Amino acid sequence: MQEIEKALEFIIEIEKLKDVQRKTRPVGLKRYENSAEHSWHVCLCALILKDYSNDPLNIDRVIKMLLIHDLGEIDAGDTIIYSSETGEKKAKEKQGLQRLASLLPGNMNIELVNLWEEFESGETADARFAKAIDRIPPLLHNIYGGGHSWKQYGITKEQVFSLNARIGMGSEVLWSEIRSKLEGAVKDGILK
Amino acid sequence: MQEIEKALEFIIEIEKLKDVQRKTRPVGLKRYENSAEHSWHVCLCALILKDYSNDPLNIDRVIKMLLIHDLGEIDAGDTIIYSSETGEKKAKEKQGLQRLASLLPGNMNIELVNLWEEFESGETADARFAKAIDRIPPLLHNIYGGGHSWKQYGITKEQVFSLNARIGMGSEVLWSEIRSKLEGAVKDGILK
Repeated sequence: MQEIEKALEFIIEIEKLKDVQRKTRPVGLKRYENSAEHSWHVCLCALILKDYSNDPLNIDRVIKMLLIHDLGEIDAGDTIIYSSETGEKKAKEKQGLQRLASLLPGNMNIELVNLWEEFESGETADARFAKAIDRIPPLLHNIYGGGHSWKQYGITKEQVFSLNARIGMGSEVLWSEIRSKLEGAVKDGILK
Repeated sequence: MQEIEKALEFIIEIEKLKDVQRKTRPVGLKRYENSAEHSWHVCLCALILKDYSNDPLNIDRVIKMLLIHDLGEIDAGDTIIYSSETGEKKAKEKQGLQRLASLLPGNMNIELVNLWEEFESGETADARFAKAIDRIPPLLHNIYGGGHSWKQYGITKEQVFSLNARIGMGSEVLWSEIRSKLEGAVKDGILK
């Protein structure tokens, strides 16, 4: 198959991310978010919030990471963050990502896998910021949506504060702002 | 209001793009696409197809343009391309974009409006490629989806070939590939 045909096949295959349902609802909407629209949202969030990074960033790499960070979910599905960080789930996502990447010509294949691995490892400044940004919209969905998914999954305030403290690894300023909104949610009784 | 509060307000406001319904259905899905997931898709399409640009590109700028290119639709709504290119529609989109941008701190505000204007004008190499990419997924949706929206809106093959020839301004190679797929759709009787 010609390279261009393979690229178009990849483009059609990744449409399936539009059919991966997440666990939170966009503010103001009565339906769950899908992983494709989430991916768009976090890319634009990263661009808007880039100046709050703890460390110097390459924002273009951060955006690329966020464009592809959920592709593994086409095969693995989405799981709420509070129970998703298992070896089994991550292995399934990695397999899924590798299957998709194998549809691409060689250099693109490697670039995709490397970016995904960097995001997952969360060790570089770009990946730390990308991972921090990835956490923010679902928290806003809960804070401004009556704590819908916290309630649905029985998530406690201890879980929310403990897991999301990692936002501070990418941006202390953003974590401080989000933490104070979470404290508000606790006061309002939507996070128990 | 603090700058960080304004940025978070913008982030919540742009969630409304997830509620703007487009006129085509992603391949394999029985529902219409929304403008947020479309925006994600075209960003990743641009990255995958960047080597087919007629002219040297700054792919990072192309991706940023595509991230924000539909934000004006939050206020203006989506219209099928074959009837959307009116002064009135464009003016509404521009007003919508400016309203959103006004939620942002000064430098971000200007960057957003300038990128959007550059995309709309379609004069730079980056904008020509971004506009070419923006046209490709809806064509694939029709080609691999029985011509659903062509039929629904009574779009003729003359309209499809004439309007989409502009893909060639960004990439002759991609237009040639898509044109041959469109000719296949005509042969198969899904584009009349």
